[in-house]
Amino acid sequence: MAPKTKYDIIAEIAKRRGFFWPSFEIYGGMSGFTTYGDLGTKLKRNIEALWKEYFVRKQGFLELEAPVINPERVFEASGHLENFKEYSAECSQCGNSFRADHLIEDKTGLENVEAMGGDAIKSMMVELKIKCPRCGGALKEPTLILTMFKTEIGATGGEVGYLRPETAQAMFLNYKRGIIHAREKLPFALVQSSKVARNEISPRRGMLRLREFTIMELELFFDPESPDCPWFGDVKDAVIRLYNEDMVENSVEEPLVLSVEEAVEKKLIITEWQAYFMGLSQRFIETLGVPAENQRFRAHLPDERAHYSAQPYDHEVKLETWGWTEISGCAYRTNFDLSNHMEASGQNMEVRREDGTRFVPHVVEPSYGLDRLMYIVMENSYERRGKRNIMHIPKELSPYQVAVFPIVKKDGIAEKAVEIRNLLLSKGLWVSYDAGGSIGRRYARVDEIGTPLAVAIDYDTMESDTLTIRDRDSWEQVKLSIDKLPDALAAYFRGENPFLELGEKVVRE
Amino acid sequence: MAPKTKYDIIAEIAKRRGFFWPSFEIYGGMSGFTTYGDLGTKLKRNIEALWKEYFVRKQGFLELEAPVINPERVFEASGHLENFKEYSAECSQCGNSFRADHLIEDKTGLENVEAMGGDAIKSMMVELKIKCPRCGGALKEPTLILTMFKTEIGATGGEVGYLRPETAQAMFLNYKRGIIHAREKLPFALVQSSKVARNEISPRRGMLRLREFTIMELELFFDPESPDCPWFGDVKDAVIRLYNEDMVENSVEEPLVLSVEEAVEKKLIITEWQAYFMGLSQRFIETLGVPAENQRFRAHLPDERAHYSAQPYDHEVKLETWGWTEISGCAYRTNFDLSNHMEASGQNMEVRREDGTRFVPHVVEPSYGLDRLMYIVMENSYERRGKRNIMHIPKELSPYQVAVFPIVKKDGIAEKAVEIRNLLLSKGLWVSYDAGGSIGRRYARVDEIGTPLAVAIDYDTMESDTLTIRDRDSWEQVKLSIDKLPDALAAYFRGENPFLELGEKVVRE
Repeated sequence: MAPKTKYDIIAEIAKRRGFFWPSFEIYGGMSGFTTYGDLGTKLKRNIEALWKEYFVRKQGFLELEAPVINPERVFEASGHLENFKEYSAECSQCGNSFRADHLIEDKTGLENVEAMGGDAIKSMMVELKIKCPRCGGALKEPTLILTMFKTEIGATGGEVGYLRPETAQAMFLNYKRGIIHAREKLPFALVQSSKVARNEISPRRGMLRLREFTIMELELFFDPESPDCPWFGDVKDAVIRLYNEDMVENSVEEPLVLSVEEAVEKKLIITEWQAYFMGLSQRFIETLGVPAENQRFRAHLPDERAHYSAQPYDHEVKLETWGWTEISGCAYRTNFDLSNHMEASGQNMEVRREDGTRFVPHVVEPSYGLDRLMYIVMENSYERRGKRNIMHIPKELSPYQVAVFPIVKKDGIAEKAVEIRNLLLSKGLWVSYDAGGSIGRRYARVDEIGTPLAVAIDYDTMESDTLTIRDRDSWEQVKLSIDKLPDALAAYFRGENPFLELGEKVVRE
Repeated sequence: MAPKTKYDIIAEIAKRRGFFWPSFEIYGGMSGFTTYGDLGTKLKRNIEALWKEYFVRKQGFLELEAPVINPERVFEASGHLENFKEYSAECSQCGNSFRADHLIEDKTGLENVEAMGGDAIKSMMVELKIKCPRCGGALKEPTLILTMFKTEIGATGGEVGYLRPETAQAMFLNYKRGIIHAREKLPFALVQSSKVARNEISPRRGMLRLREFTIMELELFFDPESPDCPWFGDVKDAVIRLYNEDMVENSVEEPLVLSVEEAVEKKLIITEWQAYFMGLSQRFIETLGVPAENQRFRAHLPDERAHYSAQPYDHEVKLETWGWTEISGCAYRTNFDLSNHMEASGQNMEVRREDGTRFVPHVVEPSYGLDRLMYIVMENSYERRGKRNIMHIPKELSPYQVAVFPIVKKDGIAEKAVEIRNLLLSKGLWVSYDAGGSIGRRYARVDEIGTPLAVAIDYDTMESDTLTIRDRDSWEQVKLSIDKLPDALAAYFRGENPFLELGEKVVRE
């Protein structure tokens, strides 16, 4: 048996404790679909809320929520109907289909085979004598397959529709309303966090290639003649690790390490807006627990680019299981999309400058896969300490903020613990309550689900109104009087560490 | 032209200001799909967060997020494949299809024609000589049509899948994981707020019948022999308006007005859990701005019931445009669903009591349509005052909490206003900033989008560090010193009204 990867370890905890697991288990499963339990749903929501702190609230950008199902005309105009395809090789024996480029990658260790194009893929399949990975049968010549989910809208004879594979088109479709709501002023952004679906031919890598997932996407509309970003100063000194096109082309190993501002000055990043979002992105991902040195930005080569993109940078994070992994694309899309929709719909999307000239706004797009970020938070926060698993989930993101335990159930201690639980609930905290099993097992559980603090109620509580508060990361315990608890917790979640000041340290574990 | 309905008025504001509008406008639209702008997205999110306060956080119920796309086997087991159908009448001339029961309702004023069954619908279509509402052509005999969106999962020869029309099945599919994560104890609940899709034959009533929308659903699993709800005391005295089956059957006009506890004692509501959720539901909807006297609970007649339901009550709200409108179903589903999935999957879902007996848990389900709730908040908060539209959106739900206006842009006033904006942003508030147009127009805008407070920065601010804070509902203005502003706002959003105490009232409007 292959040794357990980090992914296996995380996935096992995720399933046992309730972060995520494969969907439709009781009916034999269906690859590419994940179900989130209580902890995963909350962790995802907290990551999304943090993303809004970074990318929406402070800038006053405009949110949007548009349908997942779209009529065919939308994807005709956007180019997806022509381009959102992959090479699929069907087994002539068992009938299963597989992504041809992935089969080649698995056999050769090459990366990004997709970018080599159809002819290369077809001939490599033959030269490498690739067989069906499931039954060993002969594979037919790969053909291009549209990887959007197709459906029909309306009753008999309805209109063909597809589930959107990204959310950006909605921002372009609703651009004309957006600019009115932005009071006719550029720059402005439309932002969406919502579901998308991709009919992957043969999903693999668990969480990293799902058929249904959540994208957090932002389209920033600006005048290419006024390309300044008003918040650029906030990130300009951030030091990033960058591989530009030349470096990727020549497989340079060491990245350029330079400030965001230098990257713009050296024209490694064309627009200030794109540079702003890259700097902001690094900071956001740091808050998720990934240090800057485990992050990098990698340019796409011209033949790796999506059909719309002028200067895309992938934001990558180093994972133990899969190495450098894309978590975000930050692309300069020019006015490609708005121009397409303008032509296809006949609607004018131009903006008039004060000098009377007209133009179609340009677009910069930072976009994240939320499900993937959730996994990254989990992998990064995982520690094995002795026989214990600890998830050092950043406290801003933890599914539950504090756990409440009565040491025993008798002598009024459970009732007291419920009282404390209700007190903390009334302060707006997410509180878990656990009265069962040994206290050691209960501490082990909060460690494994990443609850940063646990409060134990014992006989001292009944006598002197003090309780014990325990820190997940250090396992330190402090005695604290009940009346100080709410303020101490509030301070803690503001980023302070008030416990040692307010309480008396005890050692019990 | 027909007079403007309240819906027309709300929809006009919604489109112009950015709450919601019909999707795919630039491509001619597609009925049954709505797009949410900045204000609508935020309002929906705030309603969802409030729902979690009522139905998730305090009880410690378990959240879940499962895929929208499900393989066919799921809907075979759940009964949807057989039952999730409507009678559709196709026009022999123009080819459009329409829901037969709705055509009959439109012609006769009858309600709930669906419940009369297929034979009655077919014969009424003939007797009433109903023609195509679009072209006047003859309609074919209605046929039952499956109203789930169909798709195919995987490449060529993949598996048939459907978009789920509700989220409840996911709770049943994942029940076995849920009870593990609930530490093997009943009662517990699985809760989901997520997208669903219904391929409506001929959507109408704008927001009220969408093809894609968000459901907030809760499945409470309990032992029918231990049916007590530990939180029943919180709601037992709430006075509700109730129509039981007999009253609905006999078209009784005046509801029973009684407490939740009395309704249980008189066996008008079978289980305490269902009664608890009905009481909680009324309180939740009151917080959205709908007084209890505009709410009622109406039992389903046996022939109106969904295929799974034992004792469903609709929670209805009185709307100006559409009269009494369902906003929630609260159903006692017994063990119908778990038993079905147990049989279809071969997985045992029984629980063992301490006495050794085994049983399949019973289920109570309160479920809401989020999109509909958003509309209800808007309609209920709307006031026409002189020539102004005011949205008295409850302050907990407002898309923006406070607006910041510099009276003029010159003399450093705009810079000072940006400073105040940044101060408020640093306190975590959702702040809008508007420096354009007359101050009167800017106040009119915040009234219309429901921002409860606006802060104006003027020459006094530059001289004496005071600013003017204006209340959306009363139009009262108070002068306040800047250093008191953050605490005053915090107190205001906690539910206090600190402004008159802290500041000096001024009249300017």
